[in-house]
Parts: sequence; structure tokens; C-alpha cells
Amino acid sequence: DADLAAKMGLDQKYRSIGVVSARTGASPQVMAVDEAVKATNTEVVSVEMPRDTKTGAGHGSLITIGGEDVSDVRRAVEVALAATPKMFGDIYANDAGDIEMQYTARASYACNKAFGAPIGRAYGLVCGAPAGIGVIMADTAVKAANVDIISYASPSKGTSLSNEAMIHISGDSGAVRQAVIAAREIGIKLLSTMGAEPKNQHPSYI
Amino acid sequence: DADLAAKMGLDQKYRSIGVVSARTGASPQVMAVDEAVKATNTEVVSVEMPRDTKTGAGHGSLITIGGEDVSDVRRAVEVALAATPKMFGDIYANDAGDIEMQYTARASYACNKAFGAPIGRAYGLVCGAPAGIGVIMADTAVKAANVDIISYASPSKGTSLSNEAMIHISGDSGAVRQAVIAAREIGIKLLSTMGAEPKNQHPSYI
Amino acid sequence: DADLAAKMGLDQKYRSIGVVSARTGASPQVMAVDEAVKATNTEVVSVEMPRDTKTGAGHGSLITIGGEDVSDVRRAVEVALAATPKMFGDIYANDAGDIEMQYTARASYACNKAFGAPIGRAYGLVCGAPAGIGVIMADTAVKAANVDIISYASPSKGTSLSNEAMIHISGDSGAVRQAVIAAREIGIKLLSTMGAEPKNQHPSYI
Repeated sequence: DADLAAKMGLDQKYRSIGVVSARTGASPQVMAVDEAVKATNTEVVSVEMPRDTKTGAGHGSLITIGGEDVSDVRRAVEVALAATPKMFGDIYANDAGDIEMQYTARASYACNKAFGAPIGRAYGLVCGAPAGIGVIMADTAVKAANVDIISYASPSKGTSLSNEAMIHISGDSGAVRQAVIAAREIGIKLLSTMGAEPKNQHPSYI
Repeated sequence: DADLAAKMGLDQKYRSIGVVSARTGASPQVMAVDEAVKATNTEVVSVEMPRDTKTGAGHGSLITIGGEDVSDVRRAVEVALAATPKMFGDIYANDAGDIEMQYTARASYACNKAFGAPIGRAYGLVCGAPAGIGVIMADTAVKAANVDIISYASPSKGTSLSNEAMIHISGDSGAVRQAVIAAREIGIKLLSTMGAEPKNQHPSYI
Repeated sequence: DADLAAKMGLDQKYRSIGVVSARTGASPQVMAVDEAVKATNTEVVSVEMPRDTKTGAGHGSLITIGGEDVSDVRRAVEVALAATPKMFGDIYANDAGDIEMQYTARASYACNKAFGAPIGRAYGLVCGAPAGIGVIMADTAVKAANVDIISYASPSKGTSLSNEAMIHISGDSGAVRQAVIAAREIGIKLLSTMGAEPKNQHPSYI
């Protein structure tokens, strides 16, 4: 509906809109949509990250994808849904909190829209909850390899008031991956001292 | 207390203040207070919608009612509390999320304060969580009948970062009701594909 | 890391940074850090209060402490952690909600940074959830003793959208304590009418 599209702030050029929406997890869906827009003739229209009581310390997600063609958008949503489980692979949680890592050798429109990642360059996310864990992980990551910090986010800025601290990093793909892996190691160690062994629910992909 | 009233931003003209406050549900309380201010010599002073871990994807509520007379305000609070269960009648939930519809043939001060509804006209709320469900419901509603969209709200605007998308609609009472009912149908269908049969805890009133 | 410190908005004068971070409770940690900075040569750099699904109606916390000397900062974190349980002493909860009181005869940098408390004067916090309880408690407190209201906070201002209303008060130490105790009495009474007897998990210290 054109009036609704206007109220939603959507560009009138999109004939079709797809929606990826979840109670739990924002970054996995962003990464999955990143794959989807690489694979299809579509664009990322908006990325929103709600608070939700299913999200623990973190976010849910509402991502809209636009295209001129219904079949393109439908395909993009299919690709995104298929890619989502993989992107949960480097989220480790126990009762005390959770840590979350993402990595791509080549960021596309979703990472750019959501996290300010330069398009075409390697991008990494290092995130921990409660937020204090994320601060230590961020410090460890940037000391482990020569990467650019795109931004730092914490409860009062760059998150939806969530109990997380995180950095978005960019740079050489090997360096970004090394930084993310160093953060994962310290994050698992920190969470382990506060509770049971942190587990991921899908195989690690980084 | 006058100093507290000033810090709370209350107009000094109110001799008495009543409070309707809940862990769960914002729109039912708003609709109930709408009935209350129609029935009494009181005004709606403020409507706030907190995040709360009891609210699932949505909001709690803090609504203040003001009046010159203590008995008027007390009566308004009584009317609001009595009307609240009815207003939960068109909230359907399962483990995957929930949908929420409200309707009045004649909006009053609470709907106006909270949602921008034109006073004296029909008002409808169409809301779904997770937010993606609300987007589809909104599109269905505005295609089902000729209504005015007052506003669209989503996690990053018009909500308290909640995992909901919604529209507030106004217009001819028959059209508003028809749009709301069409949204309810598609919303129940969408939720059903994601989990158990969605249930309402009070009888539907729309 | 200097780049990370810059992105975090930290003053470069701090050679060492300590972090106090929790899923549950903001004011206890603030009060505990207040004791810590009184006892050590450190400063409070920032206080953030995330929403978290472990926090019920309220907040978690992320507090950073800065100092020129690593051992000072480490000592401050140790003092803060040791003092935290005591500061949970006047939080009473049942299934319906919770109330939270804090008091110090002499506020220091953490109370100042987090709540605007004048340094060196008595400070008190009166807070209730759901927010309606906090409104009544606040009114009772300021009628019980001659205190200054530093500020009033509710879901839409001065909190992270939490379902709480609170006042921060200052003044003569006897008056602040008396106001806080009066609020505690009415708060326990209100919560009791809505559910089981409210309990504190540590001994009351006020």
C-alpha cells in the first residue's frame, strides 16, 4: 500500500518489500541478509534492533529488503533465512551472559546499513554481554591485530539500551579474523569463570 | 506534593492525580482510561510505555489522570480498572509472538494523548510482534478498507524499542472496524504457522 | 588500547580502566562504586544502565572507573564488589514488582555522576516498580521529611525505558533517611496488596 509505504518511510521505487524479523538475534540476521543482497538484485532498506524479552541481554531484529521485482525480493528472503543458522555459529552463551562474533571477508549493504561497515572490505563484530565482558573482549581484539575500529557501542549509545558492549572492526581480512578469534578466546574464558561452559548452538563458522 | 508535581511536569491546576500502572499491556490500559475520561470529569495527563521483562515483545504502562476533584479521579481510576480486562480481548498470543487489536467508534483523550487519534472519530490499533508480523498486518488492514493511517510505529520509532510494528488508523467507524478485523485474521494465521494456536485470555470485543 | 579508548570517549589521562558490570541492579553497584572512589585514588568515568531481561522491571549496569595507577583501579573494583551485596539490602521484591531504596550520609562521585547528587551531602533514592508504585512512594517520601528533590525519573525520562518511577533526594542526612524509610514502608505495603510478602535478599542497611 502506497500510503503505508510513505508512513514507513520507504522509497517509492521499491515495488516489493520483504521482511526478516526475529525475536532473538540481530547480528546473525544482518549477516544472513548481507549474503542475500550479494546473491540477488535487492537492497537493504532498513535495519532495526528491538529490545525483546526473548533476547536475553541483546536484541531482536526487523530488517526490510526492497526490490523492483517480487521474485528477487522473495529469493533474497529465502537466501537470508537459509543463511541465518550458520550465523548463530559463533554465539556462545551460558547463564551468566553471552558473547557474539561475526566475520565476513567482504561486507555488503546489510553490514553497511546496520554497522557502518565499508562495502567490499572485511568486517568483524566483537560483542559481549553483560557489557563489561564486551569491553574486555574489544580491548583484546584490537591488541591482537592491526584493525580499524569502525565504532564502539554500549548500553547508552549504538545499542537499543541492551546490556552489551561491542566493537565493529574493519581492515585486512586476515587481521580482522585474527582479532575476532582473539576476542572469542578471552570471551569464552571470562564467561566460563562466571558460570557453566559457554555453548554455541550451531557450528562455529569463523 | 507541589514540588514533586513540578518535577513530574504536572500542571498545577490538578488538585488530584490518579495512576494506572501495569507490568503488561499498554493499549488495553489506554483504551480503558479512554472510557474512564469519557465517563468522568477528568483528563489524561500523561501516557508512558515502559519496557518490562513481563511484557514479552511489548510494553507496560504508566498513565496519569488528573482532575480538580479527588472523587472524580478516584472514579476515573475505578472505571479504567473495570474496563481493562475487556480491552485484553483482542490480544492473541502463542510462544512465537502476539498480535493486538483495539477499536473504538469514538476516540477520546487517552487515545489522542497516547496515539494521536482524532477526538470523536473512530480509532483502531493494528499491532503484531515480532515486528515483521505487524508489518504484514498493517498492509492487510489498509488494503481491506478505506481508512486514514495516523502513524506507523516500529522498534526504532514510536515504540519503546519494542519488537512490534503497528499502525494507528482513523476514519469511518465501519471501515476502521473492517480493517482491524482483516488484520486480526491474517495475524492469527501468521502466528499459527509459527507455533501453537494463538489464544486470547478474555473474550474478543471487536 | 588508545584507539579504543578514544572511540569509548575515555579521557586519555587514565592509564588504567576498571569495569563493574552486572545483569541485575544499577543502584546497588552505583552505591558500591561510590564507596570505592571514596576509598581509593580513582574517578568514576561513566555510568550506563542497560535494559536486560534479567532485570525485571529495572536496569543492569556498566560502570567504568579510571585512574592513573593500575593498582588503584584494581583496588577500587575490589572495594566496589565487596560493597555490592550490602547495597542490595533495601531492595524488596515479590512477583508483582519491587521497590528499591538507597541512602548515603555523604554522596561521592558515583552518586553524582549517575544521579546528580551533590557531592558531600546526604543522598537518597526512592524507587518503585511497576512505575505507579514509585509515584506513590515518591509522594510519601517528600511529605515525610523536608528534603530537596534532585530529580524525578519515569519510563520516558531519566530511566532506560524501565517500568520504574523514582526520585533522587538530597538534604540533611536525618531528613533524607526519614523520607527514604517512609517510602519503604508504603512501598512494602503496596507490593503486599498485589502479591506475596516482599522480601529483601540481603539485610537492610538503611
